[in-house]
Amino acid sequence: MDFQTPAFLVDRAIVRRNCEAMREKARLSGVGFRPHVKTHKSVDIGRMQHGGATGPITVSTLAEAELFAANGFADITYAVPIAPDKLGRAAALAARIERLSVLADSERALNAIEQYAAAHDVTFDVFLKVDCGYHRAGVDPASPDSARLAIALARSEAVRFQGLLTHAGHAYGARDREEIGRIAAEEAACLTRFRALLAAEGLGEARRSVGSTPTASVVDRFSECDEVRPGNYVFFDAFQATIGSCALEDVAVSVLTTVVGSYPERGALIVDAGALALSKDAGPRHLDPQFGFGVVCDLDLGPLPMRIVELSQEHGKIQTESPVPVGTRLRIVPNHSCLTAAMYETYHVIEEGRVVEEWKPARGW
Amino acid sequence: MDFQTPAFLVDRAIVRRNCEAMREKARLSGVGFRPHVKTHKSVDIGRMQHGGATGPITVSTLAEAELFAANGFADITYAVPIAPDKLGRAAALAARIERLSVLADSERALNAIEQYAAAHDVTFDVFLKVDCGYHRAGVDPASPDSARLAIALARSEAVRFQGLLTHAGHAYGARDREEIGRIAAEEAACLTRFRALLAAEGLGEARRSVGSTPTASVVDRFSECDEVRPGNYVFFDAFQATIGSCALEDVAVSVLTTVVGSYPERGALIVDAGALALSKDAGPRHLDPQFGFGVVCDLDLGPLPMRIVELSQEHGKIQTESPVPVGTRLRIVPNHSCLTAAMYETYHVIEEGRVVEEWKPARGW
Repeated sequence: MDFQTPAFLVDRAIVRRNCEAMREKARLSGVGFRPHVKTHKSVDIGRMQHGGATGPITVSTLAEAELFAANGFADITYAVPIAPDKLGRAAALAARIERLSVLADSERALNAIEQYAAAHDVTFDVFLKVDCGYHRAGVDPASPDSARLAIALARSEAVRFQGLLTHAGHAYGARDREEIGRIAAEEAACLTRFRALLAAEGLGEARRSVGSTPTASVVDRFSECDEVRPGNYVFFDAFQATIGSCALEDVAVSVLTTVVGSYPERGALIVDAGALALSKDAGPRHLDPQFGFGVVCDLDLGPLPMRIVELSQEHGKIQTESPVPVGTRLRIVPNHSCLTAAMYETYHVIEEGRVVEEWKPARGW
Repeated sequence: MDFQTPAFLVDRAIVRRNCEAMREKARLSGVGFRPHVKTHKSVDIGRMQHGGATGPITVSTLAEAELFAANGFADITYAVPIAPDKLGRAAALAARIERLSVLADSERALNAIEQYAAAHDVTFDVFLKVDCGYHRAGVDPASPDSARLAIALARSEAVRFQGLLTHAGHAYGARDREEIGRIAAEEAACLTRFRALLAAEGLGEARRSVGSTPTASVVDRFSECDEVRPGNYVFFDAFQATIGSCALEDVAVSVLTTVVGSYPERGALIVDAGALALSKDAGPRHLDPQFGFGVVCDLDLGPLPMRIVELSQEHGKIQTESPVPVGTRLRIVPNHSCLTAAMYETYHVIEEGRVVEEWKPARGW
């Protein structure tokens, strides 16, 4: 491979396999499939998630939404509670496509939507974000206030109510597949219970949108939900392989790096992949407090007994007993592929060890 | 400020003050000044570091070197040990400017340089990287092998020997200014001792290049060195303020963010600055194991008693007892400004609370 390091390698065959497996699972389960694109931010991979088509997607930024909309994706959910001052930009995009759904989880956000809608004579497609135990965003499904907010959204003239949306991000803190499975069951059950509370108000059939890669990966079939939104599964990463969402062979991406310093006397190597090439995501430290900043692999042969113990901006420090000569190329499977991918302007797409394409992701906000 | 969040704000007056103070210290000390540009990667700030001129600089990537070279910077040190397969690109750049110095710290790297030089009829400006206690890159100055490598570099026909270069990165692990001061003294003394060992070989006057922002910030005057290479001081950050390199008021940058979720019942806010807007640098945890992912400030008034306890890709979770309404804008002083700045395509440059300019940094490798 005659390009310089650090470089972000994407194995197209593995991405395709990961994409097909998840799509097929959704199809066989009879649920809607709205994969997240935040992990890769690439239109090419977005199409692979839908078997070549421009199907429904989930995004984490309006910049992603705008890029995908410009490339034919017409049904998009922006899955971060919307800031009031982003409503104008969202409305402008919504006017150009079939549907841009946004998230709200507070009366204040609903008020902002209503004010904007009244002032500009528009309406918004809105999901209520529900907290299924992650305790990041979302309303408490057991609170009467949450039911009141759901009803207010459904009745608001500014809103086309899209249903209930949740994300079991706490599955990343699980210790094994069994624990992820329990969280997956609760992710779906929580929305089913919540909408039952709303049945008397005519919301008993509200759409239930769920999704995280760990929960979507460990279940055999999706149940008790109407659509799923996993994203990381296209690439997977060292974190997912450690908690049990996938095997290490399912990880489609790695960072190609070069050994620039070799210090056998202190048991260390320095490579040219540092914090900007890998991201400083600390990985699954709840399972292994000594987990490094990625899994070091031989270029072809797989994992090596080496640990990335430190990252500075452009240096990665690897602890190893082996003397590895300066100039040797290694691959590093990143801890968190979403954060690593975002550091690159270009993905080098490989198939059978050769670069076959270059893909350009969206960037910024 | 009518732009969307997250956004990277640079206070021009503080940058100017930080730039002037360091430049003046180098001038009064009578040492060469070759500031690092990796923190900002912006040609505009590179000029401010030299009072408007295009003086000598230090870079962390060849992409930075190429951008600055294209903008008139003619004397550049690339301060990461060079990978053998980057020699061609370095040689091409060196041919276009006055001097591009590279780093080597192994016989293997010297061999690669000599092979390339012989094959392409060029020579390289090369520093020997020396380890002054950080134990990242660099040779052990107490080892006879290191002296032999210095002599081999100085005698090589492929090399114009530039001297000895070190970086006291372990100053970031210091607990206070006193400890940083001791590391600063050793950073310089180590090169002085090492070159004394080389005096018999005619290298007793080899240039001594040192530099890190903590060590450069705490000394009153630079001594026992020939040039200094601090970089982070243009911006500083929450880490530097905590270990004592600067005061929090000296930090020139912050991330503007919007509260998108407010959950007083669980003592939390969600803002639209997550891991991609801030970086996952964990900050000075050796001084405060509970240090968050940045220091939350009121837009105008300074630090607030809030801690950023968790970052996911586009969500920042803040722990606070205060109910803060959705839509409120906050500023976050980043833990590590180098990593945070690198996430942005545009810096919003402010003066007296208004955006006066936009600067575009270099990106990638």
